[in-house]
Amino acid sequence: MFKRRALREFAVSITVWQALEAGAPLVPGTRPRLEPAADELVLEVLHCGLCHSDLSMLDNHWGMSSYPLVPGHEVVGRVVEVGPGVNPALIGELRGLGWICGSCSHCPQCLGGTGNLCASLEATIVGRQGGFASHVTARQDWTIPLPEGMDPAAAGPLFCGGITVFAPLVDEAVSPTAHVAVIGIGGLGHMALQFARAWGCEVTALTTNLAKAEEARGFGAHHVQALDQLGELPGRFDLVINTVNQALPWADVMGSLAPRGRLHQLGAALDPIQVGAFDLIMARRSITGSPTSSPASLLKMVDFCVRHNIRPAVEHLPMDRINEAIARLRQGDVRYRFVLDAI
Amino acid sequence: MFKRRALREFAVSITVWQALEAGAPLVPGTRPRLEPAADELVLEVLHCGLCHSDLSMLDNHWGMSSYPLVPGHEVVGRVVEVGPGVNPALIGELRGLGWICGSCSHCPQCLGGTGNLCASLEATIVGRQGGFASHVTARQDWTIPLPEGMDPAAAGPLFCGGITVFAPLVDEAVSPTAHVAVIGIGGLGHMALQFARAWGCEVTALTTNLAKAEEARGFGAHHVQALDQLGELPGRFDLVINTVNQALPWADVMGSLAPRGRLHQLGAALDPIQVGAFDLIMARRSITGSPTSSPASLLKMVDFCVRHNIRPAVEHLPMDRINEAIARLRQGDVRYRFVLDAI
Repeated sequence: MFKRRALREFAVSITVWQALEAGAPLVPGTRPRLEPAADELVLEVLHCGLCHSDLSMLDNHWGMSSYPLVPGHEVVGRVVEVGPGVNPALIGELRGLGWICGSCSHCPQCLGGTGNLCASLEATIVGRQGGFASHVTARQDWTIPLPEGMDPAAAGPLFCGGITVFAPLVDEAVSPTAHVAVIGIGGLGHMALQFARAWGCEVTALTTNLAKAEEARGFGAHHVQALDQLGELPGRFDLVINTVNQALPWADVMGSLAPRGRLHQLGAALDPIQVGAFDLIMARRSITGSPTSSPASLLKMVDFCVRHNIRPAVEHLPMDRINEAIARLRQGDVRYRFVLDAI
Repeated sequence: MFKRRALREFAVSITVWQALEAGAPLVPGTRPRLEPAADELVLEVLHCGLCHSDLSMLDNHWGMSSYPLVPGHEVVGRVVEVGPGVNPALIGELRGLGWICGSCSHCPQCLGGTGNLCASLEATIVGRQGGFASHVTARQDWTIPLPEGMDPAAAGPLFCGGITVFAPLVDEAVSPTAHVAVIGIGGLGHMALQFARAWGCEVTALTTNLAKAEEARGFGAHHVQALDQLGELPGRFDLVINTVNQALPWADVMGSLAPRGRLHQLGAALDPIQVGAFDLIMARRSITGSPTSSPASLLKMVDFCVRHNIRPAVEHLPMDRINEAIARLRQGDVRYRFVLDAI
């Protein structure tokens, strides 16, 4: 389609940070550079956020890891090469890449604008080499151009954590009149608070750690409540976004929903959620979940972020201190997201 | 508002069929006739369906029964008296009445058209005298005029069982392109099949009793499947309407949902539904529930029924054989709904 043109800015091999087995620390390595497929482009990684999903993949919690594993799926990079089906004018652009790096483009989900539900989607760190590396390859449409005014150094976490919590608002067409609660003030929750506040909603942060209350207000929470007192707020919320993956007092969570209220589950809890049929039926409540979102919603998100000055709160470390970042994230010692910078 | 006018067609007392204590058979009795409130009207009961909820109330399963209890909440009757706020021109009309007989009219839910979620709603047989009686009183707006062409003798079950299964289609704006499954071919399910077929959907009946397969096809099912083989239909349905109140293999039910598919729970299962977070998240599935529906949706339902020749399959018994109907319903011995006729 387009005449092939590649900038030979990088060598025949690329450098990576990889785990050789489950739970192992990341060690430097090299991999042969692969030609991008027709609809792919290559990003030179400038910044890459560290997400809890990277830990789950490192530890093979979900049984879908392959080693050596190169994690990292909150990438901001510069386009340095494009496949033959991609307009070479993209070279030089700053783009973001998240959990999904490709989908089939031809199934009903892709054609319908919900390519994040494609049965053949490719995840950036599942059977592929992720973003803790000098370069990463992805399909064009799953890399999102950074708009004017967005800080590349802080943007990475938007492309996984950010879109994960933006999806329950944008994809479900939440009304700005809604009363929204966010469970968990962490990597996801601190962005959810910003999104919900800018969305026009009344925002309540629910947390087990009230020491974070002031910061939660800084992110946009009108109210901060102890999670274990949720039972005292019956019928309060139109939407509860749950970012934590532990078991919760589900009856209290459901009971906190207003008529037609909705629990949106994002935490990948391993034990089943327990829901009383009456809690669903009597007030027409519902439970939803979602896996990041589509390219169209990613584009809306970055536009919304610039307009409302929404940005992840990040702590920067150079890429060669990735193991320090991993160790601290395992202990919950980050406010609120690590970004590893290329060195 | 209107000049008071009442037809003195009935005596100062009305006759009822009532249970004197939990689980007791119904015995005849009388109650003093009460003046209808300003926005109420009085129906002379012509027909009244028998619903599983009547059994639950008779047995005080939900802890909200008071005795003597007069069940019956699938009423077709003739307006014989109106309160001072109701247009007397309604007298003589045939109207249907279901589970809900009143709501506050002033709360956000009532004002927003979802009065079935009103916190102050009145249920026809909760703290009030139901439809197994000579007369029953209800607020005007919760009684629905029977349209031309609707058979009054078979219509009663529409006003509770019918609207219960129509709600997941009409209130959630289901697309006629949807693939819909109905779990349970009983009092609710046999109407759900008719509605979903007329809605334009592909319809699958899921049952533990394949002996009902031919009848299910007669009600509109394109396919009939054994419920215990649901695990063989992954990603199949956009909507599963669950009319049964037993525990199900929830992982199979969720797994049978297509991307963005939805389980709509109607069976008032007492044990919690167990839902895996991944089952919700990965394909953006959801779980909803609902309690009958609003007057506006009831009006749409009766119109839809006439246009598509949808009618409950009923077995008639005279009102004085109500205990026989109750005993047989307890054993599941009815295809598909009893209607007790005034004698």
